[in-house]
Amino acid sequence: RRRIILDTDTATDDAAAILLAMKAPTIKVEAITIVVGNVEFDQEAKNALYTLQVSGNAHKVPVFLGSSRPLLRPIHGDATYVHGKDGMSNSFFPDPEQKPEEEWAVDAMIRLIEAHPHEITIVAIGALTNVALLLLRKPSIAPLIQGITFMGGTYKFYGNVTPVATYNIWVDPEAAKIVFHSGVPITTVGFDVSVHSSIFTDADYERVAKLGTPLAKFFTEINKVRRVYCKEHQKMNGSNHPDAITTAIVIDPTIAMELLPRYCDVETQGELTRGAMLIDELGTMKQPPNVTVCAAADEKKFKEMMFRALS
Amino acid sequence: RRRIILDTDTATDDAAAILLAMKAPTIKVEAITIVVGNVEFDQEAKNALYTLQVSGNAHKVPVFLGSSRPLLRPIHGDATYVHGKDGMSNSFFPDPEQKPEEEWAVDAMIRLIEAHPHEITIVAIGALTNVALLLLRKPSIAPLIQGITFMGGTYKFYGNVTPVATYNIWVDPEAAKIVFHSGVPITTVGFDVSVHSSIFTDADYERVAKLGTPLAKFFTEINKVRRVYCKEHQKMNGSNHPDAITTAIVIDPTIAMELLPRYCDVETQGELTRGAMLIDELGTMKQPPNVTVCAAADEKKFKEMMFRALS
Amino acid sequence: RRRIILDTDTATDDAAAILLAMKAPTIKVEAITIVVGNVEFDQEAKNALYTLQVSGNAHKVPVFLGSSRPLLRPIHGDATYVHGKDGMSNSFFPDPEQKPEEEWAVDAMIRLIEAHPHEITIVAIGALTNVALLLLRKPSIAPLIQGITFMGGTYKFYGNVTPVATYNIWVDPEAAKIVFHSGVPITTVGFDVSVHSSIFTDADYERVAKLGTPLAKFFTEINKVRRVYCKEHQKMNGSNHPDAITTAIVIDPTIAMELLPRYCDVETQGELTRGAMLIDELGTMKQPPNVTVCAAADEKKFKEMMFRALS
Amino acid sequence: RRRIILDTDTATDDAAAILLAMKAPTIKVEAITIVVGNVEFDQEAKNALYTLQVSGNAHKVPVFLGSSRPLLRPIHGDATYVHGKDGMSNSFFPDPEQKPEEEWAVDAMIRLIEAHPHEITIVAIGALTNVALLLLRKPSIAPLIQGITFMGGTYKFYGNVTPVATYNIWVDPEAAKIVFHSGVPITTVGFDVSVHSSIFTDADYERVAKLGTPLAKFFTEINKVRRVYCKEHQKMNGSNHPDAITTAIVIDPTIAMELLPRYCDVETQGELTRGAMLIDELGTMKQPPNVTVCAAADEKKFKEMMFRALS
Ligand SMILES: [Ca+2]
Ligand SMILES: [Ca+2]
Ligand SMILES: [Ca+2]
Ligand SMILES: [Ca+2]
Repeated sequence: RRRIILDTDTATDDAAAILLAMKAPTIKVEAITIVVGNVEFDQEAKNALYTLQVSGNAHKVPVFLGSSRPLLRPIHGDATYVHGKDGMSNSFFPDPEQKPEEEWAVDAMIRLIEAHPHEITIVAIGALTNVALLLLRKPSIAPLIQGITFMGGTYKFYGNVTPVATYNIWVDPEAAKIVFHSGVPITTVGFDVSVHSSIFTDADYERVAKLGTPLAKFFTEINKVRRVYCKEHQKMNGSNHPDAITTAIVIDPTIAMELLPRYCDVETQGELTRGAMLIDELGTMKQPPNVTVCAAADEKKFKEMMFRALS
Repeated sequence: RRRIILDTDTATDDAAAILLAMKAPTIKVEAITIVVGNVEFDQEAKNALYTLQVSGNAHKVPVFLGSSRPLLRPIHGDATYVHGKDGMSNSFFPDPEQKPEEEWAVDAMIRLIEAHPHEITIVAIGALTNVALLLLRKPSIAPLIQGITFMGGTYKFYGNVTPVATYNIWVDPEAAKIVFHSGVPITTVGFDVSVHSSIFTDADYERVAKLGTPLAKFFTEINKVRRVYCKEHQKMNGSNHPDAITTAIVIDPTIAMELLPRYCDVETQGELTRGAMLIDELGTMKQPPNVTVCAAADEKKFKEMMFRALS
Repeated sequence: RRRIILDTDTATDDAAAILLAMKAPTIKVEAITIVVGNVEFDQEAKNALYTLQVSGNAHKVPVFLGSSRPLLRPIHGDATYVHGKDGMSNSFFPDPEQKPEEEWAVDAMIRLIEAHPHEITIVAIGALTNVALLLLRKPSIAPLIQGITFMGGTYKFYGNVTPVATYNIWVDPEAAKIVFHSGVPITTVGFDVSVHSSIFTDADYERVAKLGTPLAKFFTEINKVRRVYCKEHQKMNGSNHPDAITTAIVIDPTIAMELLPRYCDVETQGELTRGAMLIDELGTMKQPPNVTVCAAADEKKFKEMMFRALS
Repeated sequence: RRRIILDTDTATDDAAAILLAMKAPTIKVEAITIVVGNVEFDQEAKNALYTLQVSGNAHKVPVFLGSSRPLLRPIHGDATYVHGKDGMSNSFFPDPEQKPEEEWAVDAMIRLIEAHPHEITIVAIGALTNVALLLLRKPSIAPLIQGITFMGGTYKFYGNVTPVATYNIWVDPEAAKIVFHSGVPITTVGFDVSVHSSIFTDADYERVAKLGTPLAKFFTEINKVRRVYCKEHQKMNGSNHPDAITTAIVIDPTIAMELLPRYCDVETQGELTRGAMLIDELGTMKQPPNVTVCAAADEKKFKEMMFRALS
């Protein structure tokens, strides 16, 4: 089983990713680490812990707190308009039984990576602040990380927070730049893939409803705000699931249908483009590839995995 | 007949655009104006004048010299690696008989627009330096311009000089920003459209060869360097014709198959993104549309127009 | 007599500069050109024309209209809080008899420079928009200009609109950058010099009052608002006169007491530093000098010239 | 006795600062922490340790290793042209007996600050990378830090690495920005102060020579390269001692003769101004002061302290 650390700003779709990861027989979640992003930091931790609990995994995976702010600047307001005030579509679940660990997420990452050299994949489904701090804290750790699979960027498409930037990079562009230049093998799954291959339509939600399980109800519940937002503001025919499909690709690599080795960099400056990920399609930057960009995914396989996880 | 001013940094594909424009029964070319770009400025003027001559139009359209440099910075080296040293695939044609006019291109533009208020479309197939200077020289001219059709940008695609920037904006981003915020109706035809719908494959070149006309020979001759470059460096199956297809859309608007009103802006700063055109697909910038982005074109119609012009 | 073109965004201190220039026996004012800046553009022209009239010079110098906007961006609100709503400390003078010329300021500049090659000094006491357009309009004019004396920058001091930027550059940083890289000999007189050597204290205003002339009254009148502003917001012991001292240095070069050849450039980007002029004191940029920075001036001589002009 | 942590990229002048700090009866050096900067990271640590040893303080103060790279970008080449290849004017001292501690500098800082809340002043005489990581690692530590005294910036003066930037900020502008916005009380001593009040002239070096002590010889030895560099490239009449005078001000606050509360920020972007510290003299940024800028120092007191330390 591949060992993973799931680094997440847990809100709706991160919760779905946790469900997938906990259910997957092929991977072992060594730790969940919380990073600045979607909603208030402590709420993110609660969302992760509650998701573990609701899926019957309370106390099976430790949850560590990482950075509650981006490296350079204060966190932008929040994304509660997308995910609801609690990040769970205003479900306001009770406090989870399990509590976050005392150890700093970055120290836990170092401990785990050193305990399992070359075996751990970081699945980063939030801003890259924790991962950047890991690399700044101990630069020599880089060669011991098996890889980073990151939800972010956009290939032959547009951004979701600005015309060119996607949320997880835009929240902390400096962190993303540090990680992209670290030498660690990186795979990215972009906003484009989530729009093309992860949208749960009304028909999909009906199928979820028919499952009738507590997890199916949980999934439906936590997506009620996002479903509406995606339709009304993002030209989608349902809710997209970027974090879930990114995690699904780690669980079953055959879901990635097109993998492109490319040189990628991040704009940390610019008046309008801060947070844009550049994917050098034509090699104009004359640099060797540092990222494998997933450009297409198997929607059917992803949804089947999702339905199974909710069964 | 629509009146147009063709603003061009004449090299290979600009020459094809001139051929189309001179042959078109629906438009009247009031002036050709030369702008900084592909090759040495005087050579660009010669290329435009020679193209008029070879198509039997010498002395029928005046050619005016505009800006030989971008607004803010010196011109980048040149693009002779794409177009050959003379911008005509190293054809080294003789000097044309017709000479450029004395009048500054921008003064000529003002004179023509004031003579034909609301009737003139500027077809800009080079950097927007001349057009920006027109708007700076006389801001009150803006409402008298019918529109600007501009070859530039990239929609759900990538750039050709950097991962995010396309040549005509990258040469003079400040000029593009001035034009985009001028209030003049703008239509853009991007690099993406040229790649999707304007590529002349070997089969197309064979068809051109069979025409056997002097213009067919001229077209083949001036594209010999670019054909190779596009294949070897830009992942194309032949030579793309952005300037020609942009001009074709002015001649026959039905060639544009998808027209998207969008708010667009230009990044003039940034460490990696200078010259990127932002197309605000999801309305995240909360501005009214100022550009009509052509997102798809009719390849067949375009090529038929091209073949007719070379007959 | 040296020929000058006085390029001005005429408000209070520009008016004082016009008075000095018109009174000076050593220089001949060939033209006054109006540029975007302190107050509404037409008001600036009126202020220049009224100042000519009040000093008995109506119809003796033509006034031309240049650019009513910076090159790249719309003009910032305005500086009426410094100069009063009319730019003349709310004096609301009657409309002047003389009207602006029809010819574009930049065309007039070209005509004059070509008529008097190597003889004309441009005294730029506003943003450099007109001068930049001159250089863009006709790059070959550069070697025919004797020099540019520009009020702007700050040497071993701070800025007046931001911690590092001074007004005339900050209004149009792109224009300044174009001019600084044009090869034309440039002399700058900075905000620092105006604070160190041009402040009219209450005692100086008393001396002006004692002159009892119409010009003395005019000077006092137009400085009422600025006197207060400078004291309350700019840590000065009276009103500074940057435009007047810059012009005085052109009239009597011995007023400049320290002249430093330096490489200078302008920051057009930056989050906080846009509009800063860099003066490369230690040669860290490894470029030859392109600007002569006036670092100290003779306060006594300047004030005597001012008092004489108001007599 | 005030407790300090001395954060240093130990080369010539940092060594002098260590000598001052170890000799001062008013302060207790709890730790020396090493940060990226002047020379190769391990060499910096050796320089600090050797300086402790030569001054008879081996094993009396622990030395911790912090960050060997700036937050965002790789370290610029190095500053060996200023300080010699070893950072000690090519003295190539033997390896020190004492070795760096195992604990990460940032963890040590946290431990010490929590052990002595509100008592520890960080004297930062290198880039602010370690201090920024401290604040990112544990944001809640900020209110427990007594203050940060930082060598950096330039007031009414110029920069030493670019016309506007000084070395310690320029090495890691993002780190400086994080620290400046942390809420911790900051005092800065700039390049200007070092030039105005810390220059050791030939006469001063003669006086040092006459002391005849091992430390006097050590001081002379390690400054041989810098003495020449400062004269030849920085328009000084000897070697300046920014780190030493900054530390002297912590030891004897009466050395600071002018202290200005100001709002300060750092330019992390910009084409030419990256690394500039903005000091908002006129309050144009409309923010409350976050820094106390030392604008003048008592040269005589500083030098006497220095001579005493070398005796
Ligand atoms: Ca997420
Ligand atoms: Ca072209
Ligand atoms: Ca002025
Ligand atoms: Ca240092």
